[in-house]
Amino acid sequence: MLNTSIIGASGYTGAELAAMVHKHPHLQLAGLYVSENSLDANKAISELHGQLRGQIDLPLQPLTDVAAVAQASDIVLLATAHEVSHDLAPVFLAAGCQVFDLSGAFRVKGDDFYTQYYGFAHQHANWLDAAVYGLAEWNAEAIAQAQLVAVPGCYPTASQLALKPLLAAGLLDTLQWPVINAVSGVSGAGRKASMTNSFCEVSLMAYGVFTHRHQPEISAHLGTDVIFTPHLGNFKRGILATITAKLAPGVSPEAVTEAMEAAYTQPGQQAVRLLGNHTARLQDVVNTCFCDIGWNVQGQHVILTSAIDNLLKGASSQAMQCINIRNGFAPLTALVG
Amino acid sequence: MLNTSIIGASGYTGAELAAMVHKHPHLQLAGLYVSENSLDANKAISELHGQLRGQIDLPLQPLTDVAAVAQASDIVLLATAHEVSHDLAPVFLAAGCQVFDLSGAFRVKGDDFYTQYYGFAHQHANWLDAAVYGLAEWNAEAIAQAQLVAVPGCYPTASQLALKPLLAAGLLDTLQWPVINAVSGVSGAGRKASMTNSFCEVSLMAYGVFTHRHQPEISAHLGTDVIFTPHLGNFKRGILATITAKLAPGVSPEAVTEAMEAAYTQPGQQAVRLLGNHTARLQDVVNTCFCDIGWNVQGQHVILTSAIDNLLKGASSQAMQCINIRNGFAPLTALVG
Amino acid sequence: MLNTSIIGASGYTGAELAAMVHKHPHLQLAGLYVSENSLDANKAISELHGQLRGQIDLPLQPLTDVAAVAQASDIVLLATAHEVSHDLAPVFLAAGCQVFDLSGAFRVKGDDFYTQYYGFAHQHANWLDAAVYGLAEWNAEAIAQAQLVAVPGCYPTASQLALKPLLAAGLLDTLQWPVINAVSGVSGAGRKASMTNSFCEVSLMAYGVFTHRHQPEISAHLGTDVIFTPHLGNFKRGILATITAKLAPGVSPEAVTEAMEAAYTQPGQQAVRLLGNHTARLQDVVNTCFCDIGWNVQGQHVILTSAIDNLLKGASSQAMQCINIRNGFAPLTALVG
Amino acid sequence: MLNTSIIGASGYTGAELAAMVHKHPHLQLAGLYVSENSLDANKAISELHGQLRGQIDLPLQPLTDVAAVAQASDIVLLATAHEVSHDLAPVFLAAGCQVFDLSGAFRVKGDDFYTQYYGFAHQHANWLDAAVYGLAEWNAEAIAQAQLVAVPGCYPTASQLALKPLLAAGLLDTLQWPVINAVSGVSGAGRKASMTNSFCEVSLMAYGVFTHRHQPEISAHLGTDVIFTPHLGNFKRGILATITAKLAPGVSPEAVTEAMEAAYTQPGQQAVRLLGNHTARLQDVVNTCFCDIGWNVQGQHVILTSAIDNLLKGASSQAMQCINIRNGFAPLTALVG
Repeated sequence: MLNTSIIGASGYTGAELAAMVHKHPHLQLAGLYVSENSLDANKAISELHGQLRGQIDLPLQPLTDVAAVAQASDIVLLATAHEVSHDLAPVFLAAGCQVFDLSGAFRVKGDDFYTQYYGFAHQHANWLDAAVYGLAEWNAEAIAQAQLVAVPGCYPTASQLALKPLLAAGLLDTLQWPVINAVSGVSGAGRKASMTNSFCEVSLMAYGVFTHRHQPEISAHLGTDVIFTPHLGNFKRGILATITAKLAPGVSPEAVTEAMEAAYTQPGQQAVRLLGNHTARLQDVVNTCFCDIGWNVQGQHVILTSAIDNLLKGASSQAMQCINIRNGFAPLTALVG
Repeated sequence: MLNTSIIGASGYTGAELAAMVHKHPHLQLAGLYVSENSLDANKAISELHGQLRGQIDLPLQPLTDVAAVAQASDIVLLATAHEVSHDLAPVFLAAGCQVFDLSGAFRVKGDDFYTQYYGFAHQHANWLDAAVYGLAEWNAEAIAQAQLVAVPGCYPTASQLALKPLLAAGLLDTLQWPVINAVSGVSGAGRKASMTNSFCEVSLMAYGVFTHRHQPEISAHLGTDVIFTPHLGNFKRGILATITAKLAPGVSPEAVTEAMEAAYTQPGQQAVRLLGNHTARLQDVVNTCFCDIGWNVQGQHVILTSAIDNLLKGASSQAMQCINIRNGFAPLTALVG
Repeated sequence: MLNTSIIGASGYTGAELAAMVHKHPHLQLAGLYVSENSLDANKAISELHGQLRGQIDLPLQPLTDVAAVAQASDIVLLATAHEVSHDLAPVFLAAGCQVFDLSGAFRVKGDDFYTQYYGFAHQHANWLDAAVYGLAEWNAEAIAQAQLVAVPGCYPTASQLALKPLLAAGLLDTLQWPVINAVSGVSGAGRKASMTNSFCEVSLMAYGVFTHRHQPEISAHLGTDVIFTPHLGNFKRGILATITAKLAPGVSPEAVTEAMEAAYTQPGQQAVRLLGNHTARLQDVVNTCFCDIGWNVQGQHVILTSAIDNLLKGASSQAMQCINIRNGFAPLTALVG
Repeated sequence: MLNTSIIGASGYTGAELAAMVHKHPHLQLAGLYVSENSLDANKAISELHGQLRGQIDLPLQPLTDVAAVAQASDIVLLATAHEVSHDLAPVFLAAGCQVFDLSGAFRVKGDDFYTQYYGFAHQHANWLDAAVYGLAEWNAEAIAQAQLVAVPGCYPTASQLALKPLLAAGLLDTLQWPVINAVSGVSGAGRKASMTNSFCEVSLMAYGVFTHRHQPEISAHLGTDVIFTPHLGNFKRGILATITAKLAPGVSPEAVTEAMEAAYTQPGQQAVRLLGNHTARLQDVVNTCFCDIGWNVQGQHVILTSAIDNLLKGASSQAMQCINIRNGFAPLTALVG
């Protein structure tokens, strides 16, 4: 049994992580932590997340002694703000813990990126360099060796899982930038009080047009420019990405299908479900660890639809896939049935 | 044209009031006001309430000079917190304005009530005494003479409109307290950021069990004890009250119907729509000024269903009914077609 | 491994049952069946219920040879219409199968009941007599011996679990009938096209006032009259029941708490979670097997709130609890973690 | 007062039309009609659309004598299926009525279009030729002269209003086809029972990829190819279109703004509200006659967001704008305050 600590356990992702660790046959919950001055400190996690009541009633401990937590942990999950992950990860890593970071702090190489898009100067170039991007279906070999895994965000996961097979097979004309329109549930904004998240103010709308941090993350990992437009939808969980791209000359619908099947019908790739020319439906993936992908081709264009649960495949269940890969457990342990 | 000022115009009720005054053939918007230190001060109301854009783009002025506003206003609508209404109303009244207060500050006689349920000692016993309760269908005569109208809240309106005809006709056995279960949309909590109102946290649930301020308001105006249990529902607008009461011995279903019809088929009572033994449906009343009431009798019990839009008949459109009554305009002016 | 067949597997409850059987370490799915002329016959269950894709892709077989299915099954789950269950159950029972019926066909003793409330004359008085009501927390001993378990419906489960401890302890004055107001999600109406279920027509409303079949089911099993008013809410899953009852003279709040704890803090009763004077919240129980119960006492009245997932504790997970009890498995096997 | 008849008055659009005609100072409701064998025949419209209760309780008459209805009508609104409009419009036109058709039967020139996209051979080439496309902000001159106005559908209205100013000003590089992603509320599918519209089945998803009829309608009227991907969203009303297009070389953000302002700040264009670089929000337009348009430019790309109420600006209020234009009434008569 590997001792597993969750830092930032008060949020929606933290609660999902706790449930998965609790369910995992080879992990045990070593502790749940929140920041020292959190108003939720010392509350039971089930007080905040009632669905856990009776199953996980552990307290949210204030994170006062990082070294002691590191000492007691084989695995550390960071469900913390970017800056907090940036500061904490090196401490846990130095103590020998495996670290799975769900923030953006280690996702993109090059510290310029952090100055530009995150507003802070990255102080840990060596760890940024060593970090492995935890897109489970595409980086399994590296994840299996990594001490630090930077788990991708929700939009990048949905977007990349759909586009990578076609890019890898050279099927796209990327001079015309792929257009990614994605709609996220409100939980993507985290567990907090704000006017934007206020029930009566939530309404379908685009935001962060041309300026969202996930655009450069997606571009960097795909190796091609994209236009990414995120939207807020009036639902709690889930992301649907609809992607329009231009095919390279002469690419047939069959070639698209072959690329998808080549990517995702291998052993270990069961978290992606291929829909052929059906379109992905949010409801089918919410509360699951799956990414559903459908595709349609007409003339020179392909339209991809890709759906995930933003809190699961877009965060916690992908982190768990990475833990499973890293430690040699079956890929979907604690994630299905 | 009567000059009409709205104090507390940044909230959901304030926006509805502004739209109604704008539409009213005999009123004109003299000014929209927010508290001096409001973050919304000097914004256009349509910046907060996008549906008004292009129709009402007036600024939300900080209320710095109450006397000047009073001087410029024939009618003042207070969509302010209880304590604020309590302080402001006497100033406007002293200046001769008609005041329609949508807070709880003048709704119930007896200053003990305010100490017990609102946590402040009422300072204006004379105005509290003079205030007329603005339940439009039941107090029209007094409203027509009043300088200060205390417009009822949303739950009391839905509850009283259903129960009063039966109580007035002596049809209930009130030794067994009527049980009022009501579900309100989230807008009832006002326009503000809070965890309770946060999109992902809203869920059907009861709250304020045995302790909600509207229970004594309802009891006081009905003249009988009731059990009132409010609920929060996962929708923006509307209230549905389901009321179970015991009939006095020998009361027939026909007597119930007669009492309802006697109350609400008179001229001037068109804001109440009688459904007979159909049940009220939230969707039919949202965005309207109507209260739909249905009733079913079996043996010694009657079940009433009563639905309103909490922001309209539960607040702003009832205030407008009172203005219409007070000034001799047709009852539903600015409220229908 | 016990071979388990699900009849009526195309509906929402059927899909939940399939997922549970799939997950259960001691059960295996012997077959999924729909009626012979169902339009869904021979489709994969995952075609209808996309969340199962990749996990359970078995076909929905037309039920043509009941005897063969009976022969191949140790356990049969009937998620069928009342009349269909009425006809099929005896066939499976005669073949020696354990039958867990989720319809109303065997829930209430006395065939008059079926003539009056279900519109058909019951033909199987012996099985009706032998059937055990599957309210898992209250009938475990009988369930453990039963060949036919009639699993309670969603409203009766939520209502009875809250009221039974107080009735069993003699704490209620039942001369004043308890008032049960309950709101159900739309999935309670089953998987079918209808105007009532149509997205744009769904709205919070009461229905079946004084006439719903669950009222006599609740009364029969509680042994006391109740007033039960069901409502449709604008959400997919879940039931919240708010119950107002009169306490017997002299009953203290502590006595209510003791009765609740006596009922539900025993081993095997983990599916009920006690909230004390907090109120039950729909969101905490949806997608779980739990029933959350809260209570508040003031003077002579108690208000209970009780929340379940209508498809789980209100149907399929309660059926699974009964299977677990009947076969000596741990109570929440396949239902938690 | 112009006598106005509504054919197909039982649907959501029909109900909105009835409310507008009722409110209009120069129109009067001559009659509401449904097809002869409609199950709704002879019901009051308010029985189906409860919000109209007490305001419009007229019966839905079976349309048996078209000639008599034509005789009694100055204006006919067709809220009927495409084939029905195709057959009925010529009859009303021949009788001299002004006809405003909300179906697709007369929207696109060339009868091949109907064979290909609507599955029927168009029989009225002359009327198809004479019909004026009722995109109110762009065809006012022609509408003012027309006897037959083909009111655009919901998706084409939202899409064209955003794109036309840029195309008219020659600001787009249309070799790269504009990508239109749009999400519609469920009411867009009409008032009917279906599994697709069933509350529990509705989920955010794309549909009709590359094959929706509105794609060629949009292309035909814009005079350029587009890629149009419609989506179903989990809300009742509204459409949000997010459009990504490539700018012609050297086009500045200011040029985009100028084109928008040139198009929509003229007298008579108040139904379009310009948001500058803010994004359109569904909530601001639902239950209004407005189209909100925002735009953002970066490098060679522009992203437009356009929001309407699909039943109003996407159907009935646009029809009313056309009636107003045709008959010389103020443009937003019966549509605002």
